Amino acid sequence: MTERFSYTLNATDGRARTGVINTPRGDIRTPAFMPVGTAATVKAMMPESVRATGADILLGNTYHLMLRPTAERIDRLGGLHKFMNWDRPILTDSGGFQVMSLAELRKLTEEGVTFKSHIDGSKHHLTPERSMEIQKLLGSDIVMCFDECPALPASDEDVRKSMELSMRWAQRSRDAFGDRPGHALFGIQQGGVTEELRGISAEKLREIEFDGYAVGGLAVGEGQEAMFGVLDYAPDMLPKDKPRYLMGVGKPDDIVGAVARGIDMMDCVLPSRSGRTGQAWTRRGQVNIKNARHSDDPRPLDEACTCPACSNYSRAYLNHVFRSHEMISGMLITWHNLHYYQELMQGMRDAISAGTFEAFQAEFHATRAMGDIEPL
Amino acid sequence: MTERFSYTLNATDGRARTGVINTPRGDIRTPAFMPVGTAATVKAMMPESVRATGADILLGNTYHLMLRPTAERIDRLGGLHKFMNWDRPILTDSGGFQVMSLAELRKLTEEGVTFKSHIDGSKHHLTPERSMEIQKLLGSDIVMCFDECPALPASDEDVRKSMELSMRWAQRSRDAFGDRPGHALFGIQQGGVTEELRGISAEKLREIEFDGYAVGGLAVGEGQEAMFGVLDYAPDMLPKDKPRYLMGVGKPDDIVGAVARGIDMMDCVLPSRSGRTGQAWTRRGQVNIKNARHSDDPRPLDEACTCPACSNYSRAYLNHVFRSHEMISGMLITWHNLHYYQELMQGMRDAISAGTFEAFQAEFHATRAMGDIEPL
Ligand SMILES: [Zn+2]
Ligand SMILES: [Zn+2]
Repeated sequence: MTERFSYTLNATDGRARTGVINTPRGDIRTPAFMPVGTAATVKAMMPESVRATGADILLGNTYHLMLRPTAERIDRLGGLHKFMNWDRPILTDSGGFQVMSLAELRKLTEEGVTFKSHIDGSKHHLTPERSMEIQKLLGSDIVMCFDECPALPASDEDVRKSMELSMRWAQRSRDAFGDRPGHALFGIQQGGVTEELRGISAEKLREIEFDGYAVGGLAVGEGQEAMFGVLDYAPDMLPKDKPRYLMGVGKPDDIVGAVARGIDMMDCVLPSRSGRTGQAWTRRGQVNIKNARHSDDPRPLDEACTCPACSNYSRAYLNHVFRSHEMISGMLITWHNLHYYQELMQGMRDAISAGTFEAFQAEFHATRAMGDIEPL
Repeated sequence: MTERFSYTLNATDGRARTGVINTPRGDIRTPAFMPVGTAATVKAMMPESVRATGADILLGNTYHLMLRPTAERIDRLGGLHKFMNWDRPILTDSGGFQVMSLAELRKLTEEGVTFKSHIDGSKHHLTPERSMEIQKLLGSDIVMCFDECPALPASDEDVRKSMELSMRWAQRSRDAFGDRPGHALFGIQQGGVTEELRGISAEKLREIEFDGYAVGGLAVGEGQEAMFGVLDYAPDMLPKDKPRYLMGVGKPDDIVGAVARGIDMMDCVLPSRSGRTGQAWTRRGQVNIKNARHSDDPRPLDEACTCPACSNYSRAYLNHVFRSHEMISGMLITWHNLHYYQELMQGMRDAISAGTFEAFQAEFHATRAMGDIEPL
C-alpha cells in the first residue's frame, strides 16, 4: 500500500511491458484487464467473485451513475466503493463517450454537451468541470479527462477539430481536477487513425502532464487491423514511465495484440455481456453454449480452467440453464469469461517478466486455431 | 452419515417437533425448510450459497425436469445431484400438482394424466409408475407419491373421489417404487378441508406404509385460517415416528403456525420468487425494496441479519440495483430471504429443544407487529 499514485515498470519484452500501479486502495498488476461495473455492479457477479477471478480494479461509468442513482447520492452514501462493496481501485470514464452513444438530443458546444437521459428523458449538462466533479463525488481512484470522440467515418478535418477540442477539454479537466493525492487523472489521446494528429495530441497531453495516458477513439468499429495500425505507433508517443490505457478493448486476440504494442490497461464489457448471451471465451476460442451439440455433453467448458463453471458443471448443464432462461447461466458463464480474461492477463505478465512473450503469443494463437473440442 | 433413510424425533414442545432425518447424502434437521430448485437451480443462487444459508435439502420439480432437460438426459449425465452441483439430499415432487397447474390439454383417467408441455406443446403421459421411474432417474433421495389434487372449490363428493383415486395411486406408487435402500417414498394425505376424508386418507396411507407422510392439497388458495384448521387435526392422523411434510408452504407466519401444529418439513418458492421481485422478508415483516423511501437509506435490510446482502449493502444500493434491473438485485435479496427462512427454522429447532417454543412464537409475532424500521 502507498499514499500516492505511482507506476513502476518492471520488465519489457519487445514493446510489451509489465509493471504495477500503486494506489492507496491496492496495487494494479499490469497489463491489467478491468471488468466493467456500469451501474455499480459487474453484471451477474458478486464483487468478491470478481476479485476471485484476479481483478485488481473495476471500471465504473460516469454517464450511467450520474443519471441513476446520481453522483450526489453515491457521495452521500459514502462513495462508490462502499456503495457497491468493492474496496479496491476503481477507474471511472468521463461520461463523454457514452453521452455520444446512448443519450438523446445531444448538443455539443465548446463549453460541453447538453443531452437528455435515455432512462427518463431528464436534461443534463456535462462539461470537463462537471465530469471532474462527478468523478470526485463517486470517489474514483483513476479519473479520466472529459473528451470528445467523433462518430466514424469522419473527415480528417473533423477528426482534427474534435482532437483539438478534446485537448482544450483536457487542459480544463486538469485545471478542475486540482491536486488530489492518491488519486490519478489520465489524459486521452485522440486523432483517429492519423499518425500526425495522434502525435500532436500526445504532445499536448505531455505538456499538460497526467498520471497516465489513454489511447482513445479506438475500438469504435474501425476493425482490428486499423486499430493495430494505430497501436503500432500511438503508445510510443506517450511517456514510458506512465501507464497506458486502451479504452474499450476487447476480444482476447485484441488484448494480446494491444499488450504486444505496449498497452498496460484495458476494459471491455465483452466477457460479462457475452456471459449473459451464452457466449463463452476459452483458450480454444468462442463456445456458443446454446448450441444443441452441448446438450448431452458431460465435459466442462474448458477442462484446464479452474473457475466454478468449469470445475463443477458440464456443458450439458450450462446448455440447459441457458435454454431455461435461468440466472445461473449468466452467473456461471460470466464468471468463466472473467476468469479466462484474468488468466490471460496473468499469463502475459508472467511471459513478459520471463522474456518469453513471443512464445506466449505463438501458443495463444495456435491453441485458438485448434478451435473448440470435437463434439462427442 | 448412514446407509439407510431414518427419522429420529429428538424433542417435542406442545405439538411442535424437532428431530433429524438421516440419509446417505447427509442429515436433514427438522423442522426443515427446503428451497425450491425447479429447473435444477435455485433461481439466482449458486448451490454453495444455498448451502451457506443453512439448507440441508432442496426440492426439485419432476414436471419441469421431465420436460427439460428430461429425466433420461439427467440420468445419462450422472443424476440430478451431479448435474446441478448439489450433493446433499434432494426431494422431488411427483409432477402431479404442476401438471394440473401448468400443463395444457390435461386429460385425467384412472391410469394417469395425459398433457401437453407448456414449453413446446409436446405430448406426455404421467402415471404413478412413470413418476416413480422419473424420480429414480433423477436420483431423488425423497420421492413423492403421484397424486391428484382437485381444483378448488370442489364438492365434498369430488374431493372424496379425488382422494380415493390418490390413495389407489399411492398404492401403485408404493408398488412401483419397490425396495431402494437409502431412498425414501412419502405418501400424501388428501381429503381437502374435511376431517373425515383426511382420516380415511391417513388410514389408507398408514396401511400401505411409507417412510414419511405429506399433508397435501393445502396452500392452494384456501387461506391461512382454513389451512391451520386442517393442520389442527391432520398431522396427528399420521405416524409420530415418521417425518410430516406440508407441501408448498409458505410465508414465515404460515411456517411458524405449521410447525406449531406438528409439521417437520416445508418447501416454497416464495423466498426465491420474492427475491427477484424486490420483496424481502425480515424479522419485522416484508420490505418492498423498490419503494422510493429506501433510495437514500444507508441502513441494511435488517441490521441483525448476517447474510451478504445485509452485511455489505445498504437499502439504497438494493433499491438502485432493483430499479436498474441488475441481476445482483435478485441475487442479494434471494440470498437474504433464504438466509432469513433458514434462521427462522434454526430458531424454531432451538426453541423446541429448549421447551420455549411458545415464547419463540410470541416474540416472532411481536417483532413482526412492529413493522419495518421507520424511514430516516
Ligand atoms: Zn472456466
Ligand atoms: Zn440479510
